[in-house]
Amino acid sequence: MQRTEIRALYAGASQYAGQRVTVCGWVRTIRDSKTLGFIDLNDGSCFKGVQIVFEAEHVENYKEIAKQNVGAALRVTGIFVETPEAKQPFEIHAREIAVEGTSTPDYPLQKKRHSVEYLRTIAHLRPRTNLFSAAFRVRSAAAFAIHKFFQERGFVYAHTPLITASDCEGAGEMFRVTTLDLENVPRTESGEVDYSKDFFEKPASLTVSGQLEGECMALAFGKIYTFGPTFRAEKSYTQRHAAEFWMIEPEIAFADLQDDMALAKDMIQFIIRYVMETCQQDLAFFNQFVDKGLLERLSHVAESDFGHITYTEAIEILEKVNDRFEYKVHWGSDLQTEHEKYLTEQVFGRPVFVTDYPKEIKAFYMRLNDDGKTVAAVDLLVPGIGEIIGGSQREEREDVLLGRLAELGLNPADYWWYLDLRKYGGVQHAGFGLGFERMVMYLTGISNIRDVLPFPRTTGSAEF
Amino acid sequence: MQRTEIRALYAGASQYAGQRVTVCGWVRTIRDSKTLGFIDLNDGSCFKGVQIVFEAEHVENYKEIAKQNVGAALRVTGIFVETPEAKQPFEIHAREIAVEGTSTPDYPLQKKRHSVEYLRTIAHLRPRTNLFSAAFRVRSAAAFAIHKFFQERGFVYAHTPLITASDCEGAGEMFRVTTLDLENVPRTESGEVDYSKDFFEKPASLTVSGQLEGECMALAFGKIYTFGPTFRAEKSYTQRHAAEFWMIEPEIAFADLQDDMALAKDMIQFIIRYVMETCQQDLAFFNQFVDKGLLERLSHVAESDFGHITYTEAIEILEKVNDRFEYKVHWGSDLQTEHEKYLTEQVFGRPVFVTDYPKEIKAFYMRLNDDGKTVAAVDLLVPGIGEIIGGSQREEREDVLLGRLAELGLNPADYWWYLDLRKYGGVQHAGFGLGFERMVMYLTGISNIRDVLPFPRTTGSAEF
Repeated sequence: MQRTEIRALYAGASQYAGQRVTVCGWVRTIRDSKTLGFIDLNDGSCFKGVQIVFEAEHVENYKEIAKQNVGAALRVTGIFVETPEAKQPFEIHAREIAVEGTSTPDYPLQKKRHSVEYLRTIAHLRPRTNLFSAAFRVRSAAAFAIHKFFQERGFVYAHTPLITASDCEGAGEMFRVTTLDLENVPRTESGEVDYSKDFFEKPASLTVSGQLEGECMALAFGKIYTFGPTFRAEKSYTQRHAAEFWMIEPEIAFADLQDDMALAKDMIQFIIRYVMETCQQDLAFFNQFVDKGLLERLSHVAESDFGHITYTEAIEILEKVNDRFEYKVHWGSDLQTEHEKYLTEQVFGRPVFVTDYPKEIKAFYMRLNDDGKTVAAVDLLVPGIGEIIGGSQREEREDVLLGRLAELGLNPADYWWYLDLRKYGGVQHAGFGLGFERMVMYLTGISNIRDVLPFPRTTGSAEF
Repeated sequence: MQRTEIRALYAGASQYAGQRVTVCGWVRTIRDSKTLGFIDLNDGSCFKGVQIVFEAEHVENYKEIAKQNVGAALRVTGIFVETPEAKQPFEIHAREIAVEGTSTPDYPLQKKRHSVEYLRTIAHLRPRTNLFSAAFRVRSAAAFAIHKFFQERGFVYAHTPLITASDCEGAGEMFRVTTLDLENVPRTESGEVDYSKDFFEKPASLTVSGQLEGECMALAFGKIYTFGPTFRAEKSYTQRHAAEFWMIEPEIAFADLQDDMALAKDMIQFIIRYVMETCQQDLAFFNQFVDKGLLERLSHVAESDFGHITYTEAIEILEKVNDRFEYKVHWGSDLQTEHEKYLTEQVFGRPVFVTDYPKEIKAFYMRLNDDGKTVAAVDLLVPGIGEIIGGSQREEREDVLLGRLAELGLNPADYWWYLDLRKYGGVQHAGFGLGFERMVMYLTGISNIRDVLPFPRTTGSAEF
């Protein structure tokens, strides 16, 4: 079926002037006064809709159209008319209108402001609202920007597994994946769960990170990235945590922490620039209705140098103003969002890398610095959100890595293949993780992760 | 750290002639004769490596280098020399070589042919072999081609959920996702599993398809696609089935089965052309060592028209030659791979769409045809593999859909949100699913799904 998308009308307005066009979409508003009516028709191809002017004189089934409800789907053929004096740059004067699908007066998305809490209960319909239409369009553009960034630079996209039977990730609570009958869990003779009867013949879980497998790939391809779903089974009711979310994890070989930071900066700036170029209508909406400072902040981050301090320097700065924080900091404590925001917003006024954290608060695979106390970790803090990226140079020295495993009481046998990477042509390498939803929140100003995921999964909630 | 990727050397060979370059990579082969040695160094940036010539006269640590093992990681600085008379177009005459990481004589990937079965047991190292290096590079390029295809055409990339608590997908056995303690499953007073104690407070599983959620998005954005992991808990030891695999599911509104077929054809041809352009070295390898007819078949499919017959016509053709099939066909029976391959390879000699299957062998959501017996389903069959895509126009008529649910004994209440899509501005829409691994197998000639997934998850196996 031939139709012109409304996006194309905005992109090439003058070329359509006086032309006959067919558009299809859903009624956002409709009003009529006996012989003349107006419809705001939206087809989701871009943020804005198009005004349809329909007159009894020109539209055979005027009465049928005039009684349509909000939410109905229409196919409209008419004349494209530029309207330089009106609010909207053009409108369509209808000649034929067909009803593709009716709606009802109780359609949940009437022309009024709905709370985001209510809209979450109708996640199947909320993409038809301004807010969610824009949010998921930005999400899509940002995802493509990420692929484009890495592919143009020769990175190999690696699909690391989601189901994992290895216990060696150690980053938070995991969901169990099983085909055992929970009503009647099979037992071994000694009374334990008989995982030999399970699908994978051993306990399996949903991954919390593809990093370790990503390292395998980086030490073959040089530069790789992952982009896939990740899971956390931690009970949480905050605005920032979902049980299922998407993560990007690049990993680069023959590279150190400086290279890692340069990559992170380039990637963040690329994503912002790409979304600002391709989603102008959407970002204008967010800037006007969700977060007044959004466009200014994004432009600033896209162009500015990023700052850099060590964790130790950060603590010195923060200790001087400890009285303004709920959580007081000292050397050895982890940074909370309030500290991160203070550093990036008050001290730097721009994004800032914090590096070289105490080894005690970071993961076993991070490269031990020469001081023996800190590791080559890096977090990127950005104004308005705090930490957006966490990464590190990885420990490539087998003996040091074995020492770290021992310190933490971890069993080297569980890490045999990870250790192999250090035995056979191990090289300096580094990587980081970007939580995709956090990036989308940053790009839109939306403050609740439930509103940047089409169908969010959170503690106690897996609807639709 | 500055290095030039070997890919860049191949792309711009003459510009490097006589220049000093630094390359980093892993030793594939090494041989020396006292004062002169040769190394095949591979950095994974492209299929081919570069020959390093090192001489005692120019390289200070000649002896150290000469005794390196296969698998060692080196950083080589030297002069780029064109060698138009030799097998390889250029080589590097080393001036400095640093050992980034040693290897050992027992490195598993020695210069000899290993069985793919053995290589699966070292999935952390196999991307360093020719076969898997090429396979995962093609996989990455194909994935990007898919994003590029849809994004350039204005489709919104939709992340549909992986964890689902709805039972309405009905396409195969599912993995249960739980945080309940399997050693001690909590029970209600009446003795059943107490799912109110589970993370989502009800039973949850891993999705087998994002289609139903994808339809919600298509009826807001007009055109969407998903690209994400999907799961099947069916016990299977075949070459074609994995428990975790990736799937692409586009969904288009204001569209019928013809539009769906046109989209499928365009997408398949776009992917093939993109991979043929960007992975020439890799495809040349597959064509030479894995599947001699590969390039010819891909070129043919990329350029040819696709055939089209109905299921009923297909059965008529197949019944005439029923004696050559293990499974005899008759109207009403599902097509097996042997039938599909016969149709596309023997009858058509090119890809062919088969449409309008009996409703009894297809899913409830497929649009009922006017004959009341068949549905607007489509499978795309391609030479060498059989079915690669399955899709349909969706039933947009609420009353007909309710009738189908009733016929199948399904409870409409479980589908309330899916039915809402028909109530509020429902329109003709269609979509299909492409199993990504099947596409990669098609692009490479690799016959086992375990060899196109970096870390495959199959019945009884979830290593790494």
